[in-house]
Amino acid sequence: MREVALGIDIGGTNTAFGFVDRKGNCLYEDTIVTQTHEDVDLFVKEIYDKVQKSIKKLDDIKLIGIGVGAPNGNFYTGAIEDAPNLRWKGVIPFSDIFKKYFNLPVFLTNDANAAAIGEMIYGGAKGMKNFIVVTLGTGLGSGFVVNGELLYGHDGFAGEMGHIIVTPDGRQCACGRKGCLETYVSATGVKRSVYKLLADNLEESELRNIPFNDLTAKMVADAANRGDKIALKTFEHTGRMLGEVLANTVAITSPEAIFLFGGLAKSGDLIFKPTKYHLEKNLLNIYKNKIKILPSGLDDNAAILGSSALVWKEHDRKS
Amino acid sequence: MREVALGIDIGGTNTAFGFVDRKGNCLYEDTIVTQTHEDVDLFVKEIYDKVQKSIKKLDDIKLIGIGVGAPNGNFYTGAIEDAPNLRWKGVIPFSDIFKKYFNLPVFLTNDANAAAIGEMIYGGAKGMKNFIVVTLGTGLGSGFVVNGELLYGHDGFAGEMGHIIVTPDGRQCACGRKGCLETYVSATGVKRSVYKLLADNLEESELRNIPFNDLTAKMVADAANRGDKIALKTFEHTGRMLGEVLANTVAITSPEAIFLFGGLAKSGDLIFKPTKYHLEKNLLNIYKNKIKILPSGLDDNAAILGSSALVWKEHDRKS
Repeated sequence: MREVALGIDIGGTNTAFGFVDRKGNCLYEDTIVTQTHEDVDLFVKEIYDKVQKSIKKLDDIKLIGIGVGAPNGNFYTGAIEDAPNLRWKGVIPFSDIFKKYFNLPVFLTNDANAAAIGEMIYGGAKGMKNFIVVTLGTGLGSGFVVNGELLYGHDGFAGEMGHIIVTPDGRQCACGRKGCLETYVSATGVKRSVYKLLADNLEESELRNIPFNDLTAKMVADAANRGDKIALKTFEHTGRMLGEVLANTVAITSPEAIFLFGGLAKSGDLIFKPTKYHLEKNLLNIYKNKIKILPSGLDDNAAILGSSALVWKEHDRKS
Repeated sequence: MREVALGIDIGGTNTAFGFVDRKGNCLYEDTIVTQTHEDVDLFVKEIYDKVQKSIKKLDDIKLIGIGVGAPNGNFYTGAIEDAPNLRWKGVIPFSDIFKKYFNLPVFLTNDANAAAIGEMIYGGAKGMKNFIVVTLGTGLGSGFVVNGELLYGHDGFAGEMGHIIVTPDGRQCACGRKGCLETYVSATGVKRSVYKLLADNLEESELRNIPFNDLTAKMVADAANRGDKIALKTFEHTGRMLGEVLANTVAITSPEAIFLFGGLAKSGDLIFKPTKYHLEKNLLNIYKNKIKILPSGLDDNAAILGSSALVWKEHDRKS
């Protein structure tokens, strides 16, 4: 019997899920559209039906638990609480609904926390007890591991580095406030910085031909790699903002390493170089030249791996 | 036999020590001048001799361990590392020296961490698993308790909130950088803010008659309580700076409570009101109206209590 965990990543558009063994091998994966069902129960049932079918096809596997990564997922309550991008409003007791169908232990947290646990169980943070994972997607998420455990805080909502205010009265944030880090450091933040730089400067740039709604962070990275000055300045600015906040964050948790995860992290040196430079420049002496800034060690299926890792983390604790 | 811990607080000027029982009763206390001996061994021996004498006088006590709070004290190594205010330079293996004399378990950390453990064992944080203690003295120290454990970080140096940079290119800090929180929020920070406000404004103030070197934070608090406008503005400004950084810090560790400890915290509403106001104003929605801002529950002998608490924390873990 091969033991596997079911990892489920609930996104605003799609929900991906699959079986993952202790070593991080993904034995099966599938996707459904997240917002088809008005009734959450039917959403969970759709996953349940697909999983049951695939269990029958696979030889000799034993499902030992379910890990769910979801926006506003709360580890303590097992609920998704007021997620702005999901159609189910209020507090949805997701873990309970999954338990009803599967009759297995269910662990739920937000996607950035799941990424951090994934990094610890399968990725570059194996054996580390103090590190940070920063997920750079549409927004900026973060998961903190401290003394070998995920930092959930008093209410389950610790680790919202994206909502550190870096510029009082700065850019409008979806959270209703202004100047949050994720309005500068994220795929969306990069787009906003491009437009700010295009407004402030007269330099020619291929990005002057692209409407805001069509622009992607990948296009900005490609332009930077072709030597476009506005694109290069954008990445320098983004890395500076990130490096400065990381330096302040290190003064709180003093991690061994910081992992950058997600689309923007794939732009390589464009984001890593200025981030490292401005991190080191702003660190208190006692922390200098100690902290690794690394790309995530999770490749394909990272979201499923991260969610499934929640199960192995609890499993390892018991055994 | 009554079990007691020996708590030792090493300060730049004096070193205070005493016996404390599990309930926080201080059975004996004494003080020596920190910098008398060039040889650290003789410093420890002076404490040892005094402690031995007092053990003989007290009836029926059993010393179970030693807790030391010291500037730049590292819990992991038991050493004091490059403390700028002590005459012993480099890395001093304090725990080892104490063990040589006392043959007992020795736990050493910095003073702010000791205050946090003290708050958890004897003070207002009993039963709390996630909270922050901010010590407001000459500088600003902080201790973070997370999942019921002190947050030491990878290298033992976590919890330096005083060195979060709040104003790029701001006030010069003793750490060699600029704009650190403690240059604004501390007894010294208050003095500097008074002088800044006296320079920027024309308002009359009793503080215009006091030279910088004679001014104390207590004098500023007294002036504020008499209605002095510059003094009032100083506290408003100090509380705003602290509240804003606390709001960002909450987004990382999501604590149940934040305790303010030390001289400045004793100025009551003058510091608590603006701090609370600006904390709440700057919090991300999910954290609003959840976090208590409280005065430390440790009164007299707070430094000795904090240091001794390190022993009880480890003792409780084993039993």
